Amino acid sequence: MGLSGISLLTTTYSLILQHQSLLLCLRAKGFGLDLKKDMEGVDYLSDERKKAQFDVEAMKIAWAGSLEAFQLSDRMAKLVANDPAFEKFTRPMLGRKELIKNTLRKAAHGWKLIVDLRLTEEEAKWLRLYIDEPAYTDLHWGMFIPAIEGQGTEEQKKKWLPLAKKMQIIGCYAQTELGHGSNVQGLETTATFDPQTDEFIMHSPTLTSSKWWPGGLGKASTHAVVYARLIVGGEFHGVHGFIVQLRSLDDHSPLPGVTVGDIGMKFGNGAYNTMDNGVLRFDHVRIPRDQMLMRVSQVTREGKIMQSDVPRQLIYGTMVYVRQTIVADASKALSRAVCIATRYSAIRRQFGSRNGGPETQVIDYKTQQSRLFPLLASAYAFRFVGEWLKWLYTDVKERLAANDFSTLPEAHACTAGLKSLTTSFTADGIEECRKLCGGHGYLVSSGLPELFAVYIPACTYEGDNVVLLLQVARFLVKTVSELGYKKPVGTTAYMGRVASLMQNNCAVQTAEGWLNPGAVVEAFESRAARMAVRCGQQLAKYENPEEGFAELSADLVEASIAHCQLIVVSKFIEKLQQDIPGKGVKQTLEVLCYVYALFLLHKHQGDFLATGYLTPKQASLANDQLRTLYSKVRPNAITLVDSFNYTDHYLGSILGRYDGNVYPKLYEAAWKDPLNDSDVVDGFYEYVQPILKQKLRTAKL
Amino acid sequence: MGLSGISLLTTTYSLILQHQSLLLCLRAKGFGLDLKKDMEGVDYLSDERKKAQFDVEAMKIAWAGSLEAFQLSDRMAKLVANDPAFEKFTRPMLGRKELIKNTLRKAAHGWKLIVDLRLTEEEAKWLRLYIDEPAYTDLHWGMFIPAIEGQGTEEQKKKWLPLAKKMQIIGCYAQTELGHGSNVQGLETTATFDPQTDEFIMHSPTLTSSKWWPGGLGKASTHAVVYARLIVGGEFHGVHGFIVQLRSLDDHSPLPGVTVGDIGMKFGNGAYNTMDNGVLRFDHVRIPRDQMLMRVSQVTREGKIMQSDVPRQLIYGTMVYVRQTIVADASKALSRAVCIATRYSAIRRQFGSRNGGPETQVIDYKTQQSRLFPLLASAYAFRFVGEWLKWLYTDVKERLAANDFSTLPEAHACTAGLKSLTTSFTADGIEECRKLCGGHGYLVSSGLPELFAVYIPACTYEGDNVVLLLQVARFLVKTVSELGYKKPVGTTAYMGRVASLMQNNCAVQTAEGWLNPGAVVEAFESRAARMAVRCGQQLAKYENPEEGFAELSADLVEASIAHCQLIVVSKFIEKLQQDIPGKGVKQTLEVLCYVYALFLLHKHQGDFLATGYLTPKQASLANDQLRTLYSKVRPNAITLVDSFNYTDHYLGSILGRYDGNVYPKLYEAAWKDPLNDSDVVDGFYEYVQPILKQKLRTAKL
Repeated sequence: MGLSGISLLTTTYSLILQHQSLLLCLRAKGFGLDLKKDMEGVDYLSDERKKAQFDVEAMKIAWAGSLEAFQLSDRMAKLVANDPAFEKFTRPMLGRKELIKNTLRKAAHGWKLIVDLRLTEEEAKWLRLYIDEPAYTDLHWGMFIPAIEGQGTEEQKKKWLPLAKKMQIIGCYAQTELGHGSNVQGLETTATFDPQTDEFIMHSPTLTSSKWWPGGLGKASTHAVVYARLIVGGEFHGVHGFIVQLRSLDDHSPLPGVTVGDIGMKFGNGAYNTMDNGVLRFDHVRIPRDQMLMRVSQVTREGKIMQSDVPRQLIYGTMVYVRQTIVADASKALSRAVCIATRYSAIRRQFGSRNGGPETQVIDYKTQQSRLFPLLASAYAFRFVGEWLKWLYTDVKERLAANDFSTLPEAHACTAGLKSLTTSFTADGIEECRKLCGGHGYLVSSGLPELFAVYIPACTYEGDNVVLLLQVARFLVKTVSELGYKKPVGTTAYMGRVASLMQNNCAVQTAEGWLNPGAVVEAFESRAARMAVRCGQQLAKYENPEEGFAELSADLVEASIAHCQLIVVSKFIEKLQQDIPGKGVKQTLEVLCYVYALFLLHKHQGDFLATGYLTPKQASLANDQLRTLYSKVRPNAITLVDSFNYTDHYLGSILGRYDGNVYPKLYEAAWKDPLNDSDVVDGFYEYVQPILKQKLRTAKL
Repeated sequence: MGLSGISLLTTTYSLILQHQSLLLCLRAKGFGLDLKKDMEGVDYLSDERKKAQFDVEAMKIAWAGSLEAFQLSDRMAKLVANDPAFEKFTRPMLGRKELIKNTLRKAAHGWKLIVDLRLTEEEAKWLRLYIDEPAYTDLHWGMFIPAIEGQGTEEQKKKWLPLAKKMQIIGCYAQTELGHGSNVQGLETTATFDPQTDEFIMHSPTLTSSKWWPGGLGKASTHAVVYARLIVGGEFHGVHGFIVQLRSLDDHSPLPGVTVGDIGMKFGNGAYNTMDNGVLRFDHVRIPRDQMLMRVSQVTREGKIMQSDVPRQLIYGTMVYVRQTIVADASKALSRAVCIATRYSAIRRQFGSRNGGPETQVIDYKTQQSRLFPLLASAYAFRFVGEWLKWLYTDVKERLAANDFSTLPEAHACTAGLKSLTTSFTADGIEECRKLCGGHGYLVSSGLPELFAVYIPACTYEGDNVVLLLQVARFLVKTVSELGYKKPVGTTAYMGRVASLMQNNCAVQTAEGWLNPGAVVEAFESRAARMAVRCGQQLAKYENPEEGFAELSADLVEASIAHCQLIVVSKFIEKLQQDIPGKGVKQTLEVLCYVYALFLLHKHQGDFLATGYLTPKQASLANDQLRTLYSKVRPNAITLVDSFNYTDHYLGSILGRYDGNVYPKLYEAAWKDPLNDSDVVDGFYEYVQPILKQKLRTAKL
């Protein structure tokens, strides 16, 4: 065995300690490998990194939002990455029980760190993010506590929040039922007031009323905020939240009348199976009256329903908040996938060898660029629109505090639409990144299968993406119909210029002409305005507007998408009008902004042509410009994904390793599959040998 | 406990026998459920089935291709469905070792049935299909044996085929390497002729030369057809296939110099993890000279390379065959997903309740229809184009036998393009069907996650889908450039009318005008011809044609897609010009054909408008017609998916059950997750109680 063989053994030594069985395999398998070029500590992407035309450290800050945000996130990422307790490589190989036990351990370890290091809530949030494993704590902190904060009275908050914040109780958010998700008013669980005992009786009257899906409910939670139909005096008074204890605080066993369990396996290896999404049924479970969350509506001792003067619109504020975080998550998920695919596209070579030289890096193929770079640009676009949404939320909050509800419908439609747009695109984008990695993207060790499987529920939860787009459409059609007497605000302000947007056509005459923010925004505004107006005209033909809305819903969805894409493009352009420090940073982002806009323009050229705003020639010029832009992205591609500042732990991908040392690590990883524990597979003597020996007739199968 | 409770217990009795732990759960959990409406034997979709406007039994035959094909397939499907050995519900919950052992057992049981029942090869193929679990046998029968049949000499066939066909040896097909997939000429494994011993020395000179991915290689195969660079007298003589024994036929241990193992977990639960995709390295392994497959090229005892008179084009015939089967598989996979989503869309209700009545079936929403029905239409379209490809293959075979190679390039481009088009669309379509099922589609018990995970490799294997479209583009551009002196054949014959296709624009003036096969075909022909011609014109601007091809590759891919969509549309229309018996069958298929075509026209309206063939008004009329067509599909939707004749076993989906009894079965299934074995989760005392009791500081994590 030469030097190269020894180098392989050294490399893998730490892994071997964890996986004794591996040792034998690798000793046997290390022979003859020419690994001279594959040693540790080499950066296989260093040539790529030298090509950067911008200051990477400054771009990291631009991506993070501020120096402080960067430092905080960086600190938490490294804290997790350097702690072996958070190892996640073996996750996809664990059976369900082991998997959940492992998650409980990580959650406890994370909480211990938060307490021991006295982390702030913000730091704790980033820590949980980088642990990168869905767990009951997400719902406890992200839904249970906020529900009490938002819907509880001062008294209720005083009682429950200290318990929850010390985790003396663990809570979840039990809204969705087996038969009802999108339609909250259709929930069937009942909470019936019993004036004799001053209690509510929680009950699950039908099979479909079983609570179904809530995360953390199945195995971990001791409490839940349960949404149920309030029944007082035999009458139905809407759906409200109730704090219900589910399990004993001593031995964790379900309380009498409570049936609770896990709903079973979900998509993917590891992925969301670390979460105990639960099923819950009540058999006339009694809770004290003061466990109904009563900030907005109250039931008195006498069984009277009272309304407080707290504005009901508050609930929309919460929705804006939650959806804003979902948009932020979309940019995280998409950027992770793009980082993996971009790095591996620079490592992977295929075809094009000249005179026995190296083959072409696949990132140099235009087909690869035309699929990958728009995803890269989208990751940045979503990052910046998410940042803007954060501002929008604070603005909405301030206005609500001042009883100003004027911008609320627009803000609500805008966040609903952006949630839908960014999550759908991200889900598809992750799978596209997987395909861009060729066959190896199909391996769990690429990280992409788990990223996809864990991400896709975002298209369904917190509002199904198509249902949300229909809400946006309703708002757009209303805005158009009211143009005569109501000035559109915020992201619909452009509708105020509808007359000129319907009339003026595009003036671009060269490919370079498209490198003009005004021309780009006008194109997207005209397309969106024309599609919305056209929907309005079509709807007017129906006697029954609801019937028309139902009939035309597919077209309405397309108009909504046009409007939402306009928002993302506009906010990217607005971002570039701000000061962004660092050599070449703004120029590089400008290229990405045009890539994003012109990619959409080409993809949806049907809309632009059908509305008559563009001529085929102009659409073709945009496409020509797009090709030129890809060449401008190319030298910066690796450093643009480095700017996300993701650790190898967070990426969780051999293909996306920072150092690009892909093939030796893929090879090593293979031997860790439990199947390779033995040379002869379990089952050989029972099920394979009888075939080979032609003794199947007498074999016991 | 009332009657309803007893009914639940009876229902689940057989399941309980297998899952003892379930008994306790269900006894406790069965209380109070109003299951009167949820009894066994009720067909919840019977109202839907009464709506059919066509003869379902006749449609089943149309789908199967013939009465005989239907009967054969139906017999094999039922054989599998009724045999408890092929149960697959627990598959996604198994750890990797258990999973593979289970697959080995099923493969042995399947082979035993094939032998015992003396099934024909055709029957055996259907049996394996319905077992629905990727296994080493797929590669043994589908790649190893055909490779020997196609590339072996008569002598070699005589020696190896009887062993293989009795399964006294198990073989796989080892082509792909860690570093090379698409580029076969880049393979690095070497086979060096040693004239002294009359042997080949098989060797893996680099890490990236490791064979990587071959199915059945990791754990099951005793032999492989290995593709390697032939080296004779120090010179390289192309890549050839060699039969190499890998494991002992006695104890299955790897032979000296052979390193073989599994490459690890792949995407999804269950799914392709039942397959032992393998890694293989050779350390100077010697095989006799007569184990090189020598039908085309021979190496003599003296080390001379000889070529036989067997035409090299034969290899393209094989590619046409393999890709034809992949298109057939696409229609199977897509139709399974569509069947699940369609049935569940009729069961699921959300919103729209009037006066407390039932809510609206989601299949009645136009947004649902506009996403689901094009997928349904595509499943039929792919079925019929697959049928036509089967004919094309026999035609190619006959011509090859007569040394007529004239249609081969066209047939090759056509199958490459259709492989790409149908597999990409199917992969996306399965995920779309999952989303169309709302949240429950994310549960493994919906069957859709596994169907997606097991299907998606089809986009990468046997030619990466984008690489294939570029091959098609090359052929199209060549066809255009030769129009002056060469008559285009087969699926490119329309190019012969390029002058009129460039000139004449669409004449449709009403929505009904689109219900005209001639108008539809002409629209697709004009779009495809114009895009190909435009690519040719653009390419002509480049001095170096290869540079132009690289630069314009994204546009070339779009032109290829336009051409391939034309083929599918044309073949669907041609199918409808044949006699199709059964009341209403042809009329219903006509509706689907228009849905398919007009859906594509709307989706790609940018192409049709940009080429100037359509006006915006005409495109809008097509979209109006599409909405009308959805209403015509609606009453037939359930019976159109019933016509696929899939058993509940094959579908493997609670949401897609034939009887529509979804919710009780989902509820039952949840309790079978191993997590529900105990009320208190494994790990509670170690990792949760210390948090609740505020004793984390002293806990051992």
